[in-house]
Amino acid sequence: MDVIEVPDPGDPRLADYFRLRDVNLRKSIEAEHGLFMAEGEKVVRRALTAGYTPRSLLLTRRRLAALSELAAAVDAPVYVVDDATAERLTGFDVHRGALASFHRRPLPDPGDVLEGARRVVVLEDVLDHTNVGAIFRSAAGLGVDAVLLAPRCADPLYRRSIKVSMGAVFTQPFSRLGDWYGGLEELRGRGFHLLALTPGPGTRPLPEALAQAGEAPVALMLGSEGDGLSSRWLGQADTGVAIPMAGRDVDSLNVTAAAAIACYELMRSA
Amino acid sequence: MDVIEVPDPGDPRLADYFRLRDVNLRKSIEAEHGLFMAEGEKVVRRALTAGYTPRSLLLTRRRLAALSELAAAVDAPVYVVDDATAERLTGFDVHRGALASFHRRPLPDPGDVLEGARRVVVLEDVLDHTNVGAIFRSAAGLGVDAVLLAPRCADPLYRRSIKVSMGAVFTQPFSRLGDWYGGLEELRGRGFHLLALTPGPGTRPLPEALAQAGEAPVALMLGSEGDGLSSRWLGQADTGVAIPMAGRDVDSLNVTAAAAIACYELMRSA
Repeated sequence: MDVIEVPDPGDPRLADYFRLRDVNLRKSIEAEHGLFMAEGEKVVRRALTAGYTPRSLLLTRRRLAALSELAAAVDAPVYVVDDATAERLTGFDVHRGALASFHRRPLPDPGDVLEGARRVVVLEDVLDHTNVGAIFRSAAGLGVDAVLLAPRCADPLYRRSIKVSMGAVFTQPFSRLGDWYGGLEELRGRGFHLLALTPGPGTRPLPEALAQAGEAPVALMLGSEGDGLSSRWLGQADTGVAIPMAGRDVDSLNVTAAAAIACYELMRSA
Repeated sequence: MDVIEVPDPGDPRLADYFRLRDVNLRKSIEAEHGLFMAEGEKVVRRALTAGYTPRSLLLTRRRLAALSELAAAVDAPVYVVDDATAERLTGFDVHRGALASFHRRPLPDPGDVLEGARRVVVLEDVLDHTNVGAIFRSAAGLGVDAVLLAPRCADPLYRRSIKVSMGAVFTQPFSRLGDWYGGLEELRGRGFHLLALTPGPGTRPLPEALAQAGEAPVALMLGSEGDGLSSRWLGQADTGVAIPMAGRDVDSLNVTAAAAIACYELMRSA
């Protein structure tokens, strides 16, 4: 264990941890350096267990003793800072006392995660990291074979997504489509039945559409928080499906709630 | 329509709209004055439709023309401010251009919302307003008869809950238990079968427990984000139930996701 006290928040060795709440800045830092941030002991351990290579670990001095086993498990520099330095560096109170920077790995090709898959979820432009994280937690927990992301869907390895997913993003197979316009062809070419989850008229109840799909592998498509699926993707779907609603002037669910029910039905019918 | 230009963010007529992001301050202002805040045209209209009495409406000048029909529908003073005043007053950029303050109504007694109910959800200490809002949206959308809240559960009529629920909190019947310790007796006395949603060993799959409950009315209990249900409430339940999980090192779902699936199963079995 290589424990290094760093007093200066401007020290370049701490650059991975700079301004963690500045989403735009973080996107560019993380893309440029090919890194992601894990927060909290449990999530850091899950990243290690999933085989990700740490770049460094950052602990607050106050939590160093309590987290010494974690520090020993990390084969990378362990930087120790005081609470004020942590806050000036990251932009928030690091009360959990542990942050780690990890190397990203190249994502598998869509074809690789679809090999042998029978139940997949496709996220078009879910833009909120909290929603992406919660959806990955549901997908992983309920056993969805793969998650595919459209090019603009929010990053599952962004700190907030990882945290909300409780690390499920490390175990859930996923890939990103290189092409939005023609991206669904990969699924169609493999015989997937494409279900588009969308409120409104002209849809079939999800359980009925799943029964009708029979033995075919099924891909369930979910759109963005505000506007749902694009007309392009809706037009490509085999069937528009809805979660049966009861009324009370509520015509749709929150995307996390809808995704949870969809994953549940998808796996119940598998 | 009584449109009043107010240039000064310190004007006492705007006091209802003061520092909307300061949760602790807002809790005390809203309790003291018996008010709640609705944000955005759609949600304000839903509060009006549900019969809540407006105290006032606040519009930005930029959005006044676009929102004139809304202003005409509100039988209360309409305050018009510029963007800078709105931001200084509320603490954020009021880009939606409409905020309204409404009088709260006394909540019905638990017994009133339970009368004739057969499927209810009981939230013990769900503390996050986003989660409460999303759960209400699921409950209302899927047709749960009533939601009961433990004394410490977050407020469904807090601005953030209302917004996330898309106004479902106005149409979903709910009440709050006066007493945490003995609060479940009201349900038991009415013959409800009490199901406690909780991960871990010794639980039954939710669909199986619902089938077993047969014709009895069912109350599904959900606990707080971090710790789940208290041991007191777990001990009072007839059956511990779980959503069947698939593994991948994920042993539970986000509370919004779990509640959505639970409401879905609850209503599917009704």
